[in-house]
Amino acid sequence: MEFNEMLKKYAELIAKSGINVQKGQEIFLNAQVDNAPFVRLVVEELYKAGAKVVNISWGDDRLSKLKYENAPLEVFEEIPQWEAMQKNQAAEKGAGFVYIESSDPDALTGIDPKKPAARVKAGEKAFTVYREHMDKGLNTWCIVATPSPKWAKKIFPDMSEEKAIESLWKAICNAVRIDTPDPIKAWDEHRKTFEEKISILNKKQFDRLHFESANGTNIIIGMIENHKWAGGGDKTPDGVYYFPNMPTEEIFISPDKNRADGRVVSSKPLCYQGTMIEGFEFTFKDGKIIDFSAQKGYETLKELVETDEGSHRLGEVALVPVKSPISEMGILFYNTLFDENAACHLAIGRGFNECVEGAENMSKEDLEKRGLNVSATHVDFMFGTADMKITGIEKDGKESVIFQNGNWA
Amino acid sequence: MEFNEMLKKYAELIAKSGINVQKGQEIFLNAQVDNAPFVRLVVEELYKAGAKVVNISWGDDRLSKLKYENAPLEVFEEIPQWEAMQKNQAAEKGAGFVYIESSDPDALTGIDPKKPAARVKAGEKAFTVYREHMDKGLNTWCIVATPSPKWAKKIFPDMSEEKAIESLWKAICNAVRIDTPDPIKAWDEHRKTFEEKISILNKKQFDRLHFESANGTNIIIGMIENHKWAGGGDKTPDGVYYFPNMPTEEIFISPDKNRADGRVVSSKPLCYQGTMIEGFEFTFKDGKIIDFSAQKGYETLKELVETDEGSHRLGEVALVPVKSPISEMGILFYNTLFDENAACHLAIGRGFNECVEGAENMSKEDLEKRGLNVSATHVDFMFGTADMKITGIEKDGKESVIFQNGNWA
Repeated sequence: MEFNEMLKKYAELIAKSGINVQKGQEIFLNAQVDNAPFVRLVVEELYKAGAKVVNISWGDDRLSKLKYENAPLEVFEEIPQWEAMQKNQAAEKGAGFVYIESSDPDALTGIDPKKPAARVKAGEKAFTVYREHMDKGLNTWCIVATPSPKWAKKIFPDMSEEKAIESLWKAICNAVRIDTPDPIKAWDEHRKTFEEKISILNKKQFDRLHFESANGTNIIIGMIENHKWAGGGDKTPDGVYYFPNMPTEEIFISPDKNRADGRVVSSKPLCYQGTMIEGFEFTFKDGKIIDFSAQKGYETLKELVETDEGSHRLGEVALVPVKSPISEMGILFYNTLFDENAACHLAIGRGFNECVEGAENMSKEDLEKRGLNVSATHVDFMFGTADMKITGIEKDGKESVIFQNGNWA
Repeated sequence: MEFNEMLKKYAELIAKSGINVQKGQEIFLNAQVDNAPFVRLVVEELYKAGAKVVNISWGDDRLSKLKYENAPLEVFEEIPQWEAMQKNQAAEKGAGFVYIESSDPDALTGIDPKKPAARVKAGEKAFTVYREHMDKGLNTWCIVATPSPKWAKKIFPDMSEEKAIESLWKAICNAVRIDTPDPIKAWDEHRKTFEEKISILNKKQFDRLHFESANGTNIIIGMIENHKWAGGGDKTPDGVYYFPNMPTEEIFISPDKNRADGRVVSSKPLCYQGTMIEGFEFTFKDGKIIDFSAQKGYETLKELVETDEGSHRLGEVALVPVKSPISEMGILFYNTLFDENAACHLAIGRGFNECVEGAENMSKEDLEKRGLNVSATHVDFMFGTADMKITGIEKDGKESVIFQNGNWA
């Protein structure tokens, strides 16, 4: 397929299947300035598909770094009122939120991690309406990615920049099924395979899951009663089906924040706030991280874990077989949107309302009592391995093997 | 001079002489996404010179056009509350406003002029605090420009894109004195020559000016009592000297909005809101436009003139000799920042408080009673010619020739 045609197909997929823009809907799009040519294509498709207006919030890695280097900590401890209003009002108006990622994984290397951490905390206070709308699943949202030169070179350091970008484009096209004759149809079919697996897991209603790997991972994680597995796309209360992540291969749940015991060893590096964290592990007791270490990026990991009370606990458990298309590419993307679809992963921080049956009629406090985690942050990290065994244990102790050697059993 | 060195010098000039950023000051910078590489240089210099934080508001010609083409009129009839708050709060915090222009003069060709016109009107209501701060001269601001491919090709249509951009860079460097050994010093000297001319004109306190050209211009424009000519840079109440425009060659005044009689014929096309207006003229009576015409862009000119009551009257009279450096380049820039420095010009719309002696102690109503124009808009247009004669007439009828054959007499 010709490159420009492929870009157009991708833009159309984002507008139609990803955010599934509705006639007269407002779209709030986040992107990097260097990515403007692709953003223009997406915006064109969004208008074609019926968007009333598309507003853009632009970012730039280099300017973010300059700000973190030069502006004092206080600048990050408070989100400007207008910025909070912009996002909160968009959420209230029913806007769809599109995030087009193309960042350099090392963008913020060397920055005092206190500053980005302060911004995350400030965001929790400032974006309350947006957060509430997201928790309740009222707005559509969609995260996608396109190559940037630095990101491509990070993945393919031995290639020329041009060749690296081309290779990353190929990998993304493969991952988001743009290389199929009808990507929109391919995503419809993708949706069906998710729905089948979720239906089986929901019927089982395991009380806890046991994860074991030869690298040292050995942890039992408790499930919330009447939990609902999720994956693939999501539906608004009005019945608009959208894909929050493209690609997506994971089936996930938010576990009981008070029941996790054992050790988790990471299986891939984590790029957090533009800094790489590598060779890290956590020890959990009664759902809480009581110890952690990292071979690289310890200070950044510490800022993350110590964001708040909830960042010491789990918000997500996601199952991804090693036979997944992204896993089979064998590429380390240094980007969670891709890497989380190549291996089983956990997230520390905020849990998802949608994973609790009847959440729409429960207060935040009710949900927390049920075991759903609350936090300003939510960060995925990979711990799945090719030898991972996952055992589901029902309330009466009955065991079923879910994963054997990294794949669905 | 090497190109990158020249860019760095330009960025430094903007930070130090242009906006003259103060230690701990906030900067609000407006730029086009395609101009990100130069913006990064400017932001670096701003931080070096002491900025506390630099916030960026990005624009994109193509996305603006898509929005005007697709979003309904109502979207432009109201400035989003967050956008008003962003600018108003920045003004209140004493921010400096930097505008880096690099637009395509034809960016909005074909757009229904009602939409951009609606946005201008909405801005008048929304940006009240910003406007008030600007009128009172409380904040520093600086408009500069860098080439964009489309703008360069518009000026030099027969050159290759690369050559056109190079030629436009050369012209800009010349106009902003970057091609001198010490641009910051060159602007200090530039300031002095302005101060000498302004001092002479202020002493004269002409009652009215008579403009005559062979192309048909013949108009007498009344001056406000106790007027103050301005030009070059400006000073905040705290004594911070800055250059609102780079380049700048004009010496200007805000005339009496109720005294202009005669005919004004344009001498250069006007690019307004991305649309070209050409071969236009106005007839004034008692300060008000009672007739106007245009060979091209009449509808856009009509939207402009009919913005409000004040857009039927004059807000600025500016004197620029044909011997000015920009005029001598003989280039039509299709951009007011440059073209206004190549020929005498007028502006319809809002007048400047700074042109009335003692304005800082007068209310808006007082100033309007004195004859200062009020409007949501302020748009310059060129009417100066190589044969222009300007006669200053004192209250007692005594005449002095100010300009003869387009130059200072």
